[in-house]
Amino acid sequence: MTYCVGVALDQGIVFGSDSRTNAGVDNFATFCKMTVFERPGERVLVLLSSGNLAGTQAVISRLRQLADNTTATTTIWNAKTMFDIALHVSDAVRDVEQRDGSYLERGAGFNASFIIGGQIKGEGMRLFRTFREGNFIEATKDTPFFQTGEAKYGKPILDRVISPQTDMMDAAKCVLVSFDATMRSNLSVGMPIDLACYEKDRLCISMRKRFTSNDTYFSKLAESWEQGVKQLFRQMPQPTWDDLHQE
Amino acid sequence: MTYCVGVALDQGIVFGSDSRTNAGVDNFATFCKMTVFERPGERVLVLLSSGNLAGTQAVISRLRQLADNTTATTTIWNAKTMFDIALHVSDAVRDVEQRDGSYLERGAGFNASFIIGGQIKGEGMRLFRTFREGNFIEATKDTPFFQTGEAKYGKPILDRVISPQTDMMDAAKCVLVSFDATMRSNLSVGMPIDLACYEKDRLCISMRKRFTSNDTYFSKLAESWEQGVKQLFRQMPQPTWDDLHQE
Repeated sequence: MTYCVGVALDQGIVFGSDSRTNAGVDNFATFCKMTVFERPGERVLVLLSSGNLAGTQAVISRLRQLADNTTATTTIWNAKTMFDIALHVSDAVRDVEQRDGSYLERGAGFNASFIIGGQIKGEGMRLFRTFREGNFIEATKDTPFFQTGEAKYGKPILDRVISPQTDMMDAAKCVLVSFDATMRSNLSVGMPIDLACYEKDRLCISMRKRFTSNDTYFSKLAESWEQGVKQLFRQMPQPTWDDLHQE
Repeated sequence: MTYCVGVALDQGIVFGSDSRTNAGVDNFATFCKMTVFERPGERVLVLLSSGNLAGTQAVISRLRQLADNTTATTTIWNAKTMFDIALHVSDAVRDVEQRDGSYLERGAGFNASFIIGGQIKGEGMRLFRTFREGNFIEATKDTPFFQTGEAKYGKPILDRVISPQTDMMDAAKCVLVSFDATMRSNLSVGMPIDLACYEKDRLCISMRKRFTSNDTYFSKLAESWEQGVKQLFRQMPQPTWDDLHQE
């Protein structure tokens, strides 16, 4: 499985992805699911991959090959808007699906989806989420974050904390807490976590870090959160026998 | 969807179930998913239902009809052990599946699963969870709780708080917090929540309450938890630019 999050804030965009892949429970491996295309001052694109690794890798390789091909009509480097980027990724997804789809029908089927965010000079920041069919949606003020993969365990804290006005460092912290909740309850999501922050209009990645399992900050955050939640729980009003008695 | 939880503690068993059913998003209804069979001093059985409502209702009706039939070999009232109860429920699931299964293949398929817990005089408390195929597992000290239905949103708090040594009122509170997290992130789980507590060796239900959406205690708990989590989040160590910078 996989867990990826993209959060669109007034200040910028926060991206997080785990790096565990598995085929069954006895075939674990580590692959980075975050791909950054960056030309400082001109454009920054971050892609977070979910789905079958063969499919997502093929999509990324296809995008890279096209990007290197000076005769290609549309590429990651020459697309004029973020919407065109989302269409371009979507086309690559459909090309790979066309090649592999029928061969995968006996198994889980073709599946590759992406969270795509960033900014191209002359346009505002934008954040999209593609589906396996290649169609896609864009984040708005009402729904400022997207999750893919094993999304449920880590959704409550995002729901409680995130709004477009959230400070970027708070959002980065929230994404890490969300990963901690997910990894605690599901083995198929695992460290390291790749985290990237893009600040509006900077046209380069501001911060990027890989949090490994022995990272001091992440360990402290996870431990403080665990203790804090337990203490908070103890402080909650206790149901009394009266409260609980049959009505 | 549905959310049901059964927690086996040293002190007793806590049961919780939501009451929302839906066929698509435009056909919501309220049905109690908790069924109690009780002969004070002799046996207490609590069943929490998940799956297609037609299937789970058919299983419960079948169990009730058999229970009223004085010539039936095995019933809810004459089974000698909790294991025999689980076998009996499982047989009823398979009988309903045999009747309806083939007709449901074009849709989502037959699906009825149960959390079954309680105590029969002469035996200890036991807690089981049946699957749609009719096979089942029993809770142990290592894994003292079962969830069915929309289980993921509410699992992190159970994972953090519950152990066999947890006080029963704490466990009841934890189950309610788990429901709150689930309902906040998923519309298909909804109030009222039915909660029941069985205290070891009492052979009758100690406490049972239906928490409706305007319940004072539940509203206070949900509000305090929301505020507490936000405050706790603010207290967590902030990632600094140094922490986040590319390594």
